[in-house]
Amino acid sequence: MMINKLLKKIENRQANQLYSKDFLLTWEKSLKDLEQVLDIAQLLKLMREINISSKVFNSGLAISIFRDNSTRTRFSYASAANLLGLELQDLEESKSQIAHGETLRETVNMISFLSDFVGIRDDMYLGAGNTYMREVGEALDDGYAQGVLPHRPGIINLQCDIDHPTQSMADLLHLKNHFGSLEALKGKKIAMSWAYSPSYGKPLSVPQGIIGLMTRMGMDVVLAHPEGYGLIPDVMEIAEKNAKISGGSFKVVHQMDDAFKNADIVYPKSWAPYQIMEQRTVLLQKDDQEGLQKLEQEALTNNAKYQDWHCDAQKMKLTKNGEALYMHCLPADISGVSCEKGEVSADVFEKYRIETYKEAGYKPYIIAAMMFANKYKNPEKTLQKLISKASFRVL
Amino acid sequence: MMINKLLKKIENRQANQLYSKDFLLTWEKSLKDLEQVLDIAQLLKLMREINISSKVFNSGLAISIFRDNSTRTRFSYASAANLLGLELQDLEESKSQIAHGETLRETVNMISFLSDFVGIRDDMYLGAGNTYMREVGEALDDGYAQGVLPHRPGIINLQCDIDHPTQSMADLLHLKNHFGSLEALKGKKIAMSWAYSPSYGKPLSVPQGIIGLMTRMGMDVVLAHPEGYGLIPDVMEIAEKNAKISGGSFKVVHQMDDAFKNADIVYPKSWAPYQIMEQRTVLLQKDDQEGLQKLEQEALTNNAKYQDWHCDAQKMKLTKNGEALYMHCLPADISGVSCEKGEVSADVFEKYRIETYKEAGYKPYIIAAMMFANKYKNPEKTLQKLISKASFRVL
Amino acid sequence: MMINKLLKKIENRQANQLYSKDFLLTWEKSLKDLEQVLDIAQLLKLMREINISSKVFNSGLAISIFRDNSTRTRFSYASAANLLGLELQDLEESKSQIAHGETLRETVNMISFLSDFVGIRDDMYLGAGNTYMREVGEALDDGYAQGVLPHRPGIINLQCDIDHPTQSMADLLHLKNHFGSLEALKGKKIAMSWAYSPSYGKPLSVPQGIIGLMTRMGMDVVLAHPEGYGLIPDVMEIAEKNAKISGGSFKVVHQMDDAFKNADIVYPKSWAPYQIMEQRTVLLQKDDQEGLQKLEQEALTNNAKYQDWHCDAQKMKLTKNGEALYMHCLPADISGVSCEKGEVSADVFEKYRIETYKEAGYKPYIIAAMMFANKYKNPEKTLQKLISKASFRVL
Repeated sequence: MMINKLLKKIENRQANQLYSKDFLLTWEKSLKDLEQVLDIAQLLKLMREINISSKVFNSGLAISIFRDNSTRTRFSYASAANLLGLELQDLEESKSQIAHGETLRETVNMISFLSDFVGIRDDMYLGAGNTYMREVGEALDDGYAQGVLPHRPGIINLQCDIDHPTQSMADLLHLKNHFGSLEALKGKKIAMSWAYSPSYGKPLSVPQGIIGLMTRMGMDVVLAHPEGYGLIPDVMEIAEKNAKISGGSFKVVHQMDDAFKNADIVYPKSWAPYQIMEQRTVLLQKDDQEGLQKLEQEALTNNAKYQDWHCDAQKMKLTKNGEALYMHCLPADISGVSCEKGEVSADVFEKYRIETYKEAGYKPYIIAAMMFANKYKNPEKTLQKLISKASFRVL
Repeated sequence: MMINKLLKKIENRQANQLYSKDFLLTWEKSLKDLEQVLDIAQLLKLMREINISSKVFNSGLAISIFRDNSTRTRFSYASAANLLGLELQDLEESKSQIAHGETLRETVNMISFLSDFVGIRDDMYLGAGNTYMREVGEALDDGYAQGVLPHRPGIINLQCDIDHPTQSMADLLHLKNHFGSLEALKGKKIAMSWAYSPSYGKPLSVPQGIIGLMTRMGMDVVLAHPEGYGLIPDVMEIAEKNAKISGGSFKVVHQMDDAFKNADIVYPKSWAPYQIMEQRTVLLQKDDQEGLQKLEQEALTNNAKYQDWHCDAQKMKLTKNGEALYMHCLPADISGVSCEKGEVSADVFEKYRIETYKEAGYKPYIIAAMMFANKYKNPEKTLQKLISKASFRVL
Repeated sequence: MMINKLLKKIENRQANQLYSKDFLLTWEKSLKDLEQVLDIAQLLKLMREINISSKVFNSGLAISIFRDNSTRTRFSYASAANLLGLELQDLEESKSQIAHGETLRETVNMISFLSDFVGIRDDMYLGAGNTYMREVGEALDDGYAQGVLPHRPGIINLQCDIDHPTQSMADLLHLKNHFGSLEALKGKKIAMSWAYSPSYGKPLSVPQGIIGLMTRMGMDVVLAHPEGYGLIPDVMEIAEKNAKISGGSFKVVHQMDDAFKNADIVYPKSWAPYQIMEQRTVLLQKDDQEGLQKLEQEALTNNAKYQDWHCDAQKMKLTKNGEALYMHCLPADISGVSCEKGEVSADVFEKYRIETYKEAGYKPYIIAAMMFANKYKNPEKTLQKLISKASFRVL
């Protein structure tokens, strides 16, 4: 039975470095730990499908701090928290006293007296989002060490300037299920490609998350973008190192066609050039509206040169048997649907639409698995208990 | 015992067409199904009063989408969801990425991975609200059929441009309890009457909901309004047809007095003329602020001609023994209280104030009953289980 | 064992005047009742620390009405509700129909059909906040008496113009634990002192709450403020009366040094003068923006004269052995940290920072205890049941 097989794998893996640890960057986690998250997520999904409750918390709050708009991630986090028995409480900064000069350290403790998790999305400012999460973590460490907090709430990175681990891990689970196993991903070519979008300033966290994670799977990871659309150098280095260790490869090309050629998987998605994001961060911090508008104009003018970076049927023909798996974190800029000219043609998107929905559908379980592995040193024991007790989710 | 009697009725009725179906319009439901909802609502109310838990969901989300302001309906929906064990998650469109051109179909799936219900209020645009709900339904059908969603979340219409089924069903339960039975409603005269209000653009869904539902009860339904304040023609036809089938009657008069004469029940309430709502919809869609202001002025000037459409003590004297039951969905425009001159005089409203509160108090249970009947093919079995287990709501 | 000792105390105290009563002002409660709240809070905190569930509600809503910004109190209330099993539902007045002239009485009933508590913060308008809470209470009384509501939801004052009972009670629990017992507080000198702040219009509820409560503990309460920064006269009278009864003392001084001299506890905090708050209330009600700005300028200019009302190391040296306990409701205006010049120097604040966090950490449990004592006539019985059943909070 699928359930027992997963339980066995989780038990045998003995991956307990997730216990009591924040989940901030996939490359801070061992392969074993990542596999553990995938298996717990899969098991929680299975349990829900057969109406077995995963409610391990009888009470408790899961705090969210969203410093940028979000539907999907917000609902994924709420769903994960609710699945385990936690109630979502959003820290709306406009409503709160953070805006009034209160120090972060204090606020973090004030909202955490009865909280089990803090989920944070902060991808607006290059160099700031992940740093902010670590500051929150230090505040929580301090509060717990000093006896202010009864336990140390875990932090889940719901997207920062560097990584988007709940997305990349959901993507990986999708790939695992699509190709049958993680083993099967070895040697597969994935094209993480820039694509044209009429909007500007899209975060770098998705492509960075993908190259930072997929290079660990022994995959041939090709990053494609026009000249000048590079990612954060540190993450590039990590991807290179990862590929060496995993026996995969990592290279950068400046033609979409090169990336698509013979690819097993394509992930065409727009992002802002690293350097533009740096300038934007400075302007945002100075609240220089005029400068921001000028930068946007420049960036859009520059983007417009690359409208042919477009994932259409012709491009897809270049891929392995013309049948590469198309991936996207959604929402995609679909030409003729959500915009005049965008990242992907309507026919290609429609062909893979349901696949992208399923890809997204793993996210709530990935988040729940991250929470679960943070809370339990031996997650298999608790999972076993839940399964043998078999309380129904719906009576 | 009341509880067993209700359980027996629910079991014997064998009304299982509610199972797995959205609740969008009362006239899409059989009489048997509507009676089932009333009895389940009554039973859930009774259970709560004697401290028996109705919590059938151990986890799960109830999503709400409110495209118009709302206090009562929001709290009714939250209360219903909570009563059954679901956590409310509001999709705030301003916060979400819907505003950024994302297609409805996609969003609906993205927020529904772990959701059991979607409650929608959308009564701003004539021709749009109910249509929107059906689009959401199709997106959910598609997601479920394609294996994206583990089950098909049910949709509850929390008010649209056509019907307001949770209101009209709460009204019906109130009438049933007031007059003793549904049987007792046969031949009773109900006056659904337009009344003057200093505000403009009130939705048509309440009067339409009332004439669409009460005509099925064998009642003599009289719709009264000044010339030019008609309702959607389709709903008028439905009311006529319903009356023929049920052995009741449906007629339209243009004098408030005619409607009130010998009425058993009066429901005086303002609404905007159908034609005005149509013009308004076009202007809203074009965001034509000047046009909207002009239309508002015209409409208010027109309304002002009918200030004598006012439910006061003199009008109430015309009713059956001067003692008709006054109804309102609340909040009412009370003359000298919430406005200078409104729908109802302060003395009449005060006499029936508590009755209108009780009328409103059925709504959370009606919503919970709609959810319950959607989730269980044989609701009596689950209700029986809850009652025999008798977990306390409060320890 | 600590738990049994607390249970015994709660049982023996026989303090049942909290049952079914709103918690609006500490001075409306008997000493016995206040001690009961402290002990229940302590027990709930202890239970959570050893993973025993306090979930007594299987479903139910805790409504919050925040008429002013709030992070801490919002999260404290949410945490308390969640600890006992209630789901928070915020009545956002901007979203609701209150703004549309709906009467308070009606709204209160409409949102309370399935609610167990209403927590209200309303400290903006002098003479209005506490009055508003009592109006809500009357509406609930009426609704319950008339059969509209199945039970009478309790009201928790989350800060009003007169008192801030959840804060002062959390402060008292902190003092009790710091000094070992309530008995140990007798004869201790507490300096509730005004302090300089660059902001304006801070509410009076904290200093009023402190002098109204601590004078009942047999403490020597010294209120210090510059001339013209007086509190509401009624509360001053209450403090004097309390001191006489408790065998403590209450006096007012106009030098910070006098207050700090030999103090066991200091509570330096800014507030607006009573008379300024009165003028401000009138201007706010007239929405006189120009008048408000003028008043603010005057007030700030006036404040600026008292920049030496600053809690620094030198001032602390005046206190008992130079080691008085520093208290603050947070956030404090910390000189050189959250503002250029504020209530407290950075070194003094840092020394006591963790203490102030712990002080704040009692608030969720104080609120939960107020709810608990409102719901149960014999709270010890339910607490005993929870403890012997020992359901885990986290599996």
